[in-house]
Amino acid sequence: MDITKLIRKECEGFKPYVAGKPIETIKREMGLKSVIKLASNENPLGASKKALEAIKENLKEIFYYPDSNSYALKKGLSEHYGLSVGNIFTGAGGDEIIELIAKLFFNKEEEVVISRHSFIRYEMAAKLMGSKAIVVAMKEGFKHDLTGMAKACTEKTKAVFVTNPNNPTGTYNTKEELCKFLKDIPSNKAGLKPIVVLDEAYFEYAFLEEDYPNGIDFLKENPNLIIFRTFSKIYGLAGLRVAYGFASEEIVDYIERTRPPFNVNRLAQIGGTAAIEDNEQVVKSLELVNEGKEYLYKEFRDLEIEYIKSAGNFILFNSSPYKGKELFDALVREGVIIRAMDEYELPDWVRVTIGLCEENELFIDKLKKIFSRIRISNKE
Amino acid sequence: MDITKLIRKECEGFKPYVAGKPIETIKREMGLKSVIKLASNENPLGASKKALEAIKENLKEIFYYPDSNSYALKKGLSEHYGLSVGNIFTGAGGDEIIELIAKLFFNKEEEVVISRHSFIRYEMAAKLMGSKAIVVAMKEGFKHDLTGMAKACTEKTKAVFVTNPNNPTGTYNTKEELCKFLKDIPSNKAGLKPIVVLDEAYFEYAFLEEDYPNGIDFLKENPNLIIFRTFSKIYGLAGLRVAYGFASEEIVDYIERTRPPFNVNRLAQIGGTAAIEDNEQVVKSLELVNEGKEYLYKEFRDLEIEYIKSAGNFILFNSSPYKGKELFDALVREGVIIRAMDEYELPDWVRVTIGLCEENELFIDKLKKIFSRIRISNKE
Repeated sequence: MDITKLIRKECEGFKPYVAGKPIETIKREMGLKSVIKLASNENPLGASKKALEAIKENLKEIFYYPDSNSYALKKGLSEHYGLSVGNIFTGAGGDEIIELIAKLFFNKEEEVVISRHSFIRYEMAAKLMGSKAIVVAMKEGFKHDLTGMAKACTEKTKAVFVTNPNNPTGTYNTKEELCKFLKDIPSNKAGLKPIVVLDEAYFEYAFLEEDYPNGIDFLKENPNLIIFRTFSKIYGLAGLRVAYGFASEEIVDYIERTRPPFNVNRLAQIGGTAAIEDNEQVVKSLELVNEGKEYLYKEFRDLEIEYIKSAGNFILFNSSPYKGKELFDALVREGVIIRAMDEYELPDWVRVTIGLCEENELFIDKLKKIFSRIRISNKE
Repeated sequence: MDITKLIRKECEGFKPYVAGKPIETIKREMGLKSVIKLASNENPLGASKKALEAIKENLKEIFYYPDSNSYALKKGLSEHYGLSVGNIFTGAGGDEIIELIAKLFFNKEEEVVISRHSFIRYEMAAKLMGSKAIVVAMKEGFKHDLTGMAKACTEKTKAVFVTNPNNPTGTYNTKEELCKFLKDIPSNKAGLKPIVVLDEAYFEYAFLEEDYPNGIDFLKENPNLIIFRTFSKIYGLAGLRVAYGFASEEIVDYIERTRPPFNVNRLAQIGGTAAIEDNEQVVKSLELVNEGKEYLYKEFRDLEIEYIKSAGNFILFNSSPYKGKELFDALVREGVIIRAMDEYELPDWVRVTIGLCEENELFIDKLKKIFSRIRISNKE
């Protein structure tokens, strides 16, 4: 009996997820004493101290199921953002939120508009539901072509995904651009606009930019808007899996009906509730990342390496004359893990997460070493 | 714009999940100083001590994403059960595993055979994918009618769900019955048998019963079999969300391709890896539950209350002359939370989780108080 014949057609093309190797594995394989990971846009300062304290205090209660309503977490988010609890939902990371949206809205044969070098999970969620991803090329400078994305909407379009700022490019679309885009999105014959999913996973790193739009400001006038943010990035809770979203009460009500009842685990709820009030975490992380970015930009310029100015806690830079994968391999051999970008269709680029000062310096040292080898051999 | 018009037809009938109220809320609402919860089949001894220690040691690392392959957890499970890592997958609780199976296999218009008074999440997962649940009545004594379930399979049947032991009835099907069932399940015209999902969430409470079947023994000869177990019950990690499954390498490979990459959080993996070696947790919990069951059985007999002998850590008992919901309310007013069974189509039954000795005694005291009121008033 060939069991794979029972599998849904939609699932057949899925490739296995290739995860970054854990630090311990790389140490062992490469015979290295010290390895640093600047690969997954984690916060090198660690988790919010307030979150860690709250988790420690409540650790013994993990034998109880989580609160299926994330009551305290939603209340905390409601107070923090000045939104009604009825406009807030929670999920086990941005990953689950994308899937919650797909399960609620995407049908077979429908289309989902995405930007080319953007988060890969949108396309997978669409495929899982039998929808087709319509990929729109970026504008020069790796910015989402919001005009092009609005034009790509057809009668079949169920949703458009906009990551702002975008991962892995670090670029963002301005208030004006987003505002125009939300108006431009065409209605179908039934008078319905597609859902706009605004992924603000890196919001806290970008929100001080003057022309960066806060999605919440557009919520009231756009009932088709769903925004989500995460505790995985600036708050340092990536390992716990907790994120949250904002939408109209109607949409939130349906998400609540269709999500798994215990999707956000107990410690994730406790951690998130404490973290959202941890301003010190945000301030310190922003300081570290901004300093790190200035340092790395300067070093890249000195090394004549092309990079994209980033509103996130990472920088995309050109790996030429290496392929991104080659530079990744060369850096791993030196004990520095970054991220190659082949799966984002950027084979000549790599992404580095801003680390602690000494990590950034070590990364630059190793980069210089690798590039000097090439440049010396070119001169010969 | 009526946003609900964009929602998938399949999601329209979903009712909001009604969660049990947290202990704190009930204390406040009822003006009670002490409230005990015997409602969700949690382990009253708390989480595995080994799991708690391991989590404490690794707490600071929650700013890193989880290992997307659950490498250490799978290795631990592989050693514990003597199965290859390629036959093991992990999920964020049994809930997610059910949905992983649904997303991988269930198409629109297909059928999924389930037993009437069984876990409600099977039907929801089927509905979400547009499949129809075919509900088979139980045999007398609330046992799955495996013969009837095999007969209910048609050309359209994609899967059959068997919970063993069953929640909420506590009954189990024997080795012989399961063996016959797996042979009886008919192949369709293409020569394919439906997937059999064997939910062994309460395995550790039942495995000492002589005629209780260990699903693993049937794995090799049944490529259509998927088994899953959980850390939520005897290991006391319900709040963390971690469960695991066994299946053929082909099925596991496809589950790995379609699951969210970080579905099992970092502390859940660490907790599970430590818990699976915690024999003391299993032995102590079994002792407590077996003693508790004997005590409650005796009390129920004395009170002339009909109950179902249970292979789990809970007992289903008849609430007559009360409706289950009435008895639930009456007990809550006394500070004891149990579970009414309306959503399981058992309006005259309630389920009580085996608690600590003093909790079981308190529950019986309050039950006696409530029943004596009725019986006195009946005599009047």
